[in-house]
Amino acid sequence: MTLRELKEIVLEANLDLVRHHLVLFTWGNASGVDRERGLIVIKPSGVSYQDLTAEKLPVLDFCGNIIEGQLNPSSDTPTHLVLYRSFPEIVGVVHTHSAYATAWSQAQRDIPANGTTHADYFYREIPCTRSMTRDEIFGDYEAETGNVIAECFRVRRINPAEVPGVLVANHGAFTWGNSVQQAVENAVVLEEVARIASISCSLNSELPMNPLLIEKHFSRKHGDNAYYGQ
Amino acid sequence: MTLRELKEIVLEANLDLVRHHLVLFTWGNASGVDRERGLIVIKPSGVSYQDLTAEKLPVLDFCGNIIEGQLNPSSDTPTHLVLYRSFPEIVGVVHTHSAYATAWSQAQRDIPANGTTHADYFYREIPCTRSMTRDEIFGDYEAETGNVIAECFRVRRINPAEVPGVLVANHGAFTWGNSVQQAVENAVVLEEVARIASISCSLNSELPMNPLLIEKHFSRKHGDNAYYGQ
Amino acid sequence: MTLRELKEIVLEANLDLVRHHLVLFTWGNASGVDRERGLIVIKPSGVSYQDLTAEKLPVLDFCGNIIEGQLNPSSDTPTHLVLYRSFPEIVGVVHTHSAYATAWSQAQRDIPANGTTHADYFYREIPCTRSMTRDEIFGDYEAETGNVIAECFRVRRINPAEVPGVLVANHGAFTWGNSVQQAVENAVVLEEVARIASISCSLNSELPMNPLLIEKHFSRKHGDNAYYGQ
Amino acid sequence: MTLRELKEIVLEANLDLVRHHLVLFTWGNASGVDRERGLIVIKPSGVSYQDLTAEKLPVLDFCGNIIEGQLNPSSDTPTHLVLYRSFPEIVGVVHTHSAYATAWSQAQRDIPANGTTHADYFYREIPCTRSMTRDEIFGDYEAETGNVIAECFRVRRINPAEVPGVLVANHGAFTWGNSVQQAVENAVVLEEVARIASISCSLNSELPMNPLLIEKHFSRKHGDNAYYGQ
Repeated sequence: MTLRELKEIVLEANLDLVRHHLVLFTWGNASGVDRERGLIVIKPSGVSYQDLTAEKLPVLDFCGNIIEGQLNPSSDTPTHLVLYRSFPEIVGVVHTHSAYATAWSQAQRDIPANGTTHADYFYREIPCTRSMTRDEIFGDYEAETGNVIAECFRVRRINPAEVPGVLVANHGAFTWGNSVQQAVENAVVLEEVARIASISCSLNSELPMNPLLIEKHFSRKHGDNAYYGQ
Repeated sequence: MTLRELKEIVLEANLDLVRHHLVLFTWGNASGVDRERGLIVIKPSGVSYQDLTAEKLPVLDFCGNIIEGQLNPSSDTPTHLVLYRSFPEIVGVVHTHSAYATAWSQAQRDIPANGTTHADYFYREIPCTRSMTRDEIFGDYEAETGNVIAECFRVRRINPAEVPGVLVANHGAFTWGNSVQQAVENAVVLEEVARIASISCSLNSELPMNPLLIEKHFSRKHGDNAYYGQ
Repeated sequence: MTLRELKEIVLEANLDLVRHHLVLFTWGNASGVDRERGLIVIKPSGVSYQDLTAEKLPVLDFCGNIIEGQLNPSSDTPTHLVLYRSFPEIVGVVHTHSAYATAWSQAQRDIPANGTTHADYFYREIPCTRSMTRDEIFGDYEAETGNVIAECFRVRRINPAEVPGVLVANHGAFTWGNSVQQAVENAVVLEEVARIASISCSLNSELPMNPLLIEKHFSRKHGDNAYYGQ
Repeated sequence: MTLRELKEIVLEANLDLVRHHLVLFTWGNASGVDRERGLIVIKPSGVSYQDLTAEKLPVLDFCGNIIEGQLNPSSDTPTHLVLYRSFPEIVGVVHTHSAYATAWSQAQRDIPANGTTHADYFYREIPCTRSMTRDEIFGDYEAETGNVIAECFRVRRINPAEVPGVLVANHGAFTWGNSVQQAVENAVVLEEVARIASISCSLNSELPMNPLLIEKHFSRKHGDNAYYGQ
């Protein structure tokens, strides 16, 4: 893939966030990486989606140095970079403040794996990170946000390939994937799963689940024995 | 009806699921049968709705053998087949993960018959199936899903002509009808009824109902003395 | 106003119910009357909104006899007729199963007058009728529905000019007005007020209200000292 | 800026309220001021948004005298005038009955600062005013509504530049800004923040928050050390 193609893909991914009603104004961003060349393409900070073009997308190296582009990258760029470094298999990252996902993050609750809709994409609960410390918040805040996510997956032994998304406490959602498009799809699904779970929760606060069904549905779509699709 | 006509009807039914906002991505499917020839037409697995054409729809016999078409049928095909075999009067089946219906299924609660909107289409509560066993889940899972639905109606003595839909525990909704279009309409109504009931439930957890009103409204639209419509 | 003009107004009123997302399929109807000639124009039963034309609207006298038109009038026509007879000042009636209004009716709760949005249109709580008796339901059901509404306003001493709408227990909403358009507007407002009140209720089940504010806002828009608008 | 330009900006602001689904019918209004000339441009009362043109917008002085225009100004004009006088730095004001904001005002609850989405725009809780007294309601009601807002910010020592919006008890929302567009944007954000908070609240009534995160996010976007955007 050329850098030009990556920019087009990242542009479409950012516009898809608007099409799927996941962002208001400039509240979200998608990035993609070329791991061979060590480059990341990301949305510029505070630029409205309707003014976005592929040319305007900044290109950075993995240390955050701007390689191409006139505009400041998203202020969340350091979070994206930590995720790319911590989860070596991923090539796309999305951040949103979509309403239901954000509501769960504000409630500081994991989204429980409570149905096959969830299990088709997420192998277990979608975790909510711990609160950040004073030093993290007033230090290198956006990088520390990435570190808190990575810590959450490490400490709770969650495989980021099996749970391609997270809630950051009192903040919003990050998702990722094996492609930029997949990171976007996971952001759409996380929001829908968050919405369904919030309704379920109002109908039955105990949220009963059959864990075998999660095993079955995740493996129906993922892994060696997957048989969903063409 | 020719097979070509059945394919067109099943195509439109699948597209209607998108138009009525019942599906995200490829999360749903509609099928129809020609009972005389013993054929079923169903959505192919994992194909996006915008790429669907009548020609792409697989045709199967009632044992699940592909008679026509290049694409794999929906992975839920065995569930559809069990429903067609168990409920001999139906000719269309729809499966969705529509949000409110799915929320009730995740809460493992029947949707109570709590209003005339419900009673115009469903003669009593819309049941939620029992949880599936390990053997069912890791056996012939999709066929067993159909068996659990059929068991639910048999054990609870529910007439599938009077209650043309079901919630599968921790999964989603199936609906059916005397025509493919009716199965779609019942899926739309089930979602709306699930939405209204979830709001009702937050306003009054006891959900009071006058059972005579159910009797009246169902018979106003169905059966020998129906007087609704032209 | 000619009968032709009344038909056009009633047609637009019915189509407005769809435009305002108050009805699914054929679940609703609007009527208007010419009190001088003693005629009512109403939606035909079970006809889809997209097929409606002014010519298709049945014209009836106040006893329910068809004066013009080939189609059966709405099965709810007897309810409309009772309302026109019981509330002599009204000239338009609307019936819907809009989701939030229906949820309150299924919860068998009045919508409390809890804000100025409510008070701009409804001078006090929007009442929910009592449950109907066996004789009412299996007698002249639709006329009895009208009678239960009229009884509710009479017994609770509610002025239908000040509260132009009602919830029928376990059923849905009826609204009315000094014009057919106003009956439609009141149906839209009832649904929005029901939506806001259901959210309020989840945030504070006591729903505190300043009754003086209701007095003020209703009189700001209605009556001799109204000063809202041009 | 010419008066003509201000009228165009205020027209667009009013139309934006419709585009963002914050108003039904005529339930809302936006105004802007030219502080040098002491003029305010505001929506006329009860005129539908589709009929609005820049020429129809009344121009008033800060005492409420009509300087230009044939139509009555919004009945809420005195509230706008008190806000412009009480908060000398603001140049745009918006009033809506948007559903979630109104629900919090009907619940008479502040919207707690419970996430970074909130903190990006509002430095602390969005306050709900006290109930108004009989004298205020039956006196110069709309001006007193402004006075109650100003009192709320004064007594609770809230800086209107840091919290550019308020809930009026049992009524609705007012927002403001350094530009008319910003007042509109704050109205959109207030509604979204109210929506997210109401869902959070249903998931965890304690609404845990890390106050340091509010400090961080507000200062990331506002003040001398802001680094969001270009």
